[in-house]
Amino acid sequence: MSKNIPKNDLMEKIVNLCKRRGLIFPSSEIYGGTGSVWDYGPYGALLKNNVKMLWWRDMIQFRDDMVPQDSSILMHPKVWEASGHISSFTDPLVECKKCHHRFREDHILEGKYGNVVGKGGKVVCPDCGGEMTESKMFNLMFKTFMGPMEDSAHAVYLRPETAQGIFANFKAILEVARKKLPFGIAQIGKSFRNEITPGNFTFRTREFEQMEIEYFVKPDEAEKWYDKWIKIREKWYRDYGVKKDNLRLRKHAKKELAHYAKGATDIEYHFPFGWSELEGIANRQDYDLKQHEKFSGHDMKYFEEEGMKKYYPYVIEPSGGVDRAALAFLVDAYNENEQGEVFLRLDPRLSPIKIAVFPLVNKEKLPNIAHDIYDELKQNWFVQYDDGGSVGRRYRRQDEIGTPYCVTVDFDTPKKNTVTVRERDSMKQERVKIKELLDYFKGKLSK
Amino acid sequence: MSKNIPKNDLMEKIVNLCKRRGLIFPSSEIYGGTGSVWDYGPYGALLKNNVKMLWWRDMIQFRDDMVPQDSSILMHPKVWEASGHISSFTDPLVECKKCHHRFREDHILEGKYGNVVGKGGKVVCPDCGGEMTESKMFNLMFKTFMGPMEDSAHAVYLRPETAQGIFANFKAILEVARKKLPFGIAQIGKSFRNEITPGNFTFRTREFEQMEIEYFVKPDEAEKWYDKWIKIREKWYRDYGVKKDNLRLRKHAKKELAHYAKGATDIEYHFPFGWSELEGIANRQDYDLKQHEKFSGHDMKYFEEEGMKKYYPYVIEPSGGVDRAALAFLVDAYNENEQGEVFLRLDPRLSPIKIAVFPLVNKEKLPNIAHDIYDELKQNWFVQYDDGGSVGRRYRRQDEIGTPYCVTVDFDTPKKNTVTVRERDSMKQERVKIKELLDYFKGKLSK
Repeated sequence: MSKNIPKNDLMEKIVNLCKRRGLIFPSSEIYGGTGSVWDYGPYGALLKNNVKMLWWRDMIQFRDDMVPQDSSILMHPKVWEASGHISSFTDPLVECKKCHHRFREDHILEGKYGNVVGKGGKVVCPDCGGEMTESKMFNLMFKTFMGPMEDSAHAVYLRPETAQGIFANFKAILEVARKKLPFGIAQIGKSFRNEITPGNFTFRTREFEQMEIEYFVKPDEAEKWYDKWIKIREKWYRDYGVKKDNLRLRKHAKKELAHYAKGATDIEYHFPFGWSELEGIANRQDYDLKQHEKFSGHDMKYFEEEGMKKYYPYVIEPSGGVDRAALAFLVDAYNENEQGEVFLRLDPRLSPIKIAVFPLVNKEKLPNIAHDIYDELKQNWFVQYDDGGSVGRRYRRQDEIGTPYCVTVDFDTPKKNTVTVRERDSMKQERVKIKELLDYFKGKLSK
Repeated sequence: MSKNIPKNDLMEKIVNLCKRRGLIFPSSEIYGGTGSVWDYGPYGALLKNNVKMLWWRDMIQFRDDMVPQDSSILMHPKVWEASGHISSFTDPLVECKKCHHRFREDHILEGKYGNVVGKGGKVVCPDCGGEMTESKMFNLMFKTFMGPMEDSAHAVYLRPETAQGIFANFKAILEVARKKLPFGIAQIGKSFRNEITPGNFTFRTREFEQMEIEYFVKPDEAEKWYDKWIKIREKWYRDYGVKKDNLRLRKHAKKELAHYAKGATDIEYHFPFGWSELEGIANRQDYDLKQHEKFSGHDMKYFEEEGMKKYYPYVIEPSGGVDRAALAFLVDAYNENEQGEVFLRLDPRLSPIKIAVFPLVNKEKLPNIAHDIYDELKQNWFVQYDDGGSVGRRYRRQDEIGTPYCVTVDFDTPKKNTVTVRERDSMKQERVKIKELLDYFKGKLSK
């Protein structure tokens, strides 16, 4: 039933669907947008919320070895000295002396802008051919000032990752969580990076949401847990329906690794614009805790009761992007039939709306019965009532946003106390008794 | 059983409990904190998450007239011109010419720093007695720069409220949500205000989380909905257990009202530091939509099919703070018995941990049975396993964080297949069959 969609067309189709149905669209669009930040409309906000809540449930509630935290975006600037972000979180930047457009030097050298070598062999501006400045390092952290004084003593940064909020709190959490190694601290929250070249829809943006785990282990168990977490996180995406062929693991080559990382593996997704990082799992060793001890003067070591010894735990970091996960789920679920009608085959747990309720026509008792069913079901799930247009058209609307079940109240309903339940992917319909409907959906939707 | 705690002591007790049990503590504490931003530890993050999820469920999922959105923190700067924040979101600031400390002029004049009038009748510095500058207006929005150019054309602001993200998207959401007036758009998210004098724990901070609704109505129904929303939101706090005597409504006097507001009412909570705003409900009329039309050039009017006419809807705004709600719930739930033991009598739906499972001793089959029970229950709720110290001590630990139910596996358990369930507030214990435990808690905890 599904049409094969060329990868080149797929991204445009998804961006169009997101815009048309209000899943995702540019922030501040009435002012022309900002080019690097996106808003989630009603269905997008529900999808994104489902991604977060499922991660929170699976990675924290269901596990014995994990606690959550919620640390702030504006942290003490020393945090970023300790983490190395102030000195090293930079991209090389060159500027055109004529039109003042700026570019990442590495992108120019990689040929992203084509051949931009001018007379005499020097690189020239891709936009106007002007002469370029020497490159200088540009820090990707957004800077602002806390309090009424705008001087260097009051400069603070929007966090570029949630991770450092966990490292800085390690000892405080360790004390209250009463956990022994191995255990993890998990957090969901916004981070900000002043990317010079954002792009690919919500893939690379200046404001984004992360779901990060810092998992603290005995140093000699780090390799084992690094391997385990790669498997756990890969399985998580698979469990929510991402196709096997669209996922791959990419181990970082030694020269790619940050100096503090012993190993790093990306879980990549086959986005329409190419294989790209969905989540990274890194073995950060004891770098961060040691740095925070050095810069704060606070002991960041772990005391092991059994061995009566103190040491720095190693850290395995599975770091995922909420927006990237939501985008991958959207891409993976996107299908069209031969007529070009869209089916978003989302796992029902991710679907923004779980059930739509339709009265076949707006007369006799049908709307009343449909409303009663809607009122009951929405106590448990996000449910939508729709009485506009033909039933076929209403199915199309729900298929497009990935609603797994539609309930139609028809002319047989008042007599037989049954409704038609239609499933999105099989398009199969079955009659279900109204009084059994709640349990029917509890069986289908509660996993 | 409860001890009467003087209001003066209560705040200190709550701050201590939050620190001791890791509910809430200063951000970047190992670096001395920032003085105006707080982190939520494991139990705090769970409490805050429950506040947000209950609001999301009650205000969006359960209602027919509400859709969510999730807009960005960094918006186009024109948004803040249109909203009036660039010109008017300011406090009057004076600076000491000697020690360069800065103060809010209105606070000095209100006598917050005592009598600081020097020789000649002029106000002097409360800290060093030095001469003060003339006051100038200080904008409370945090400013930063988007992209690599640090000039005024690239200045952006951290949003001081989520509300404008809703107004700017009004037409986009209206189109995709297929709603007619009255309907609302709801959003939860972080906002930032560079307060000159933050304080009172998490009450006034520079980074905070809002839960805001913009409810669009026919202009002649604005008063009716304004009254309705005050009642809905007051009832919401009451439904989650806030004591009636600790809530009051404060209608803003005419001179207090922002120029765009027809009326505004605060739901105030009796915090230990005095009656203070928990949530504000305002009738913003059509100010914001008109402003955005003026500044963006986009038509922001609503088309009413029935009357075949176009007009600006009026807006009722119930705007609550997640952190303030969490703090009020904590204050309201705080109890001590005569021995000074703490009981956090949170509504179970707010409790970070719903059930704790204890093996009476760590021998025979007791830990195995307790673990099996824990494994089953945690599929449904956040559950904690605790085998440390006496059972009495374990009860204390759970009472302090507001866990409503404790399950103890004792010596009778292997023989009778029953456990003891102890309820936090009544301290009553009852024997429950293990195989009935899941349904028992479903009955208690699912509302």
